Amino acid sequence: MTGLFITLEGPEGAGKTTQLARLEARLRGTGRCVTVTREPGGTPLGMRVREVVLDPTLEMGPLSEFLLYSASRAQLVQDVLRPALERGDVVLCDRYFDSSLAYQGAGRGLPLALLRDLTREVTGGLTPDLTLLLDLDPAVGLARAAQRGQADRLEQADLAFHQRVRAGFLELAQAEAQRFAVLDAAQSADAVEAQLWAAVESKL
Amino acid sequence: MTGLFITLEGPEGAGKTTQLARLEARLRGTGRCVTVTREPGGTPLGMRVREVVLDPTLEMGPLSEFLLYSASRAQLVQDVLRPALERGDVVLCDRYFDSSLAYQGAGRGLPLALLRDLTREVTGGLTPDLTLLLDLDPAVGLARAAQRGQADRLEQADLAFHQRVRAGFLELAQAEAQRFAVLDAAQSADAVEAQLWAAVESKL
Repeated sequence: MTGLFITLEGPEGAGKTTQLARLEARLRGTGRCVTVTREPGGTPLGMRVREVVLDPTLEMGPLSEFLLYSASRAQLVQDVLRPALERGDVVLCDRYFDSSLAYQGAGRGLPLALLRDLTREVTGGLTPDLTLLLDLDPAVGLARAAQRGQADRLEQADLAFHQRVRAGFLELAQAEAQRFAVLDAAQSADAVEAQLWAAVESKL
Repeated sequence: MTGLFITLEGPEGAGKTTQLARLEARLRGTGRCVTVTREPGGTPLGMRVREVVLDPTLEMGPLSEFLLYSASRAQLVQDVLRPALERGDVVLCDRYFDSSLAYQGAGRGLPLALLRDLTREVTGGLTPDLTLLLDLDPAVGLARAAQRGQADRLEQADLAFHQRVRAGFLELAQAEAQRFAVLDAAQSADAVEAQLWAAVESKL
């Protein structure tokens, strides 16, 4: 694999979509081939799974939730991520397995060891070269996300859940400091972009 | 758990639906409370997963397929199977984890050890008291299923796949002869019903 695999993580409302678009443009500006994708989604199967997993009318346990994300992830690895990395692209992915560890592990309380074991099977061990964590107080993130319209199933969870998710992300970042760059998403989009680009440049 | 957990397994076209209805009626005739359900499906989440997993237009790898079935199964165990067994019902389930071992294991070639490990997590170890395997030559079963209209994604797989699935079911039955009753589904529905009822009566 000759490409570079970069994931963006963090809560809704942290500005992942904005930063992803800016990062894509800067990378293309350097002449690199860039593949942009997201989880859940990114494949026809993933799009269908996305509809199910975010549907606020559906009841689902944490393990079912994790398995749905994993189904989408397995297909994304096979059909999108590995082929793009083998071509040598820079791959930008909006969420990846760290989201499962933070949301279904730290947030919902599933054992991290179980999630890691299964994730290894699902991804065949494919791990990002760089994970950009847009860290933000969940109260701020949820307020920003609420301005965009109706909340999806995960956004509707209570604030304590989102605080556990944030703490989970920060623990992951601390445990793998080489892979993670933690960015303060409360700053202006320009300030975040500058820090984020510095982190990416160091890996190019 | 005071109930009795019975699963029906076998290929499409083996007569599972017919036999399930007859078995339900006979059990109700003895005054027992019966819960009838199926996989995938059986819960609102399961119905949504069923639509995805059987959609003939979707490409999906064997692991994604297995994970989708597992997501539906985890919800079914939690919301339907365990509560019914705790009430003391006889629970009849059209397909359960043996289908995953046969279709995604023997049929698609995923390692059985992986499927078993994950299934233990997904079901919390909930295993049927009795599994009725309606065994049938796949060529016969597929011809019967084809008469019912458009083939779903699994029915469209080739005959060699369905032969591996059949062999997989028979190996599972041989390995757990106490749990399985293997019935020749090429017989008349009445003959199958009589054998099937004998197997069920021995567990009541």
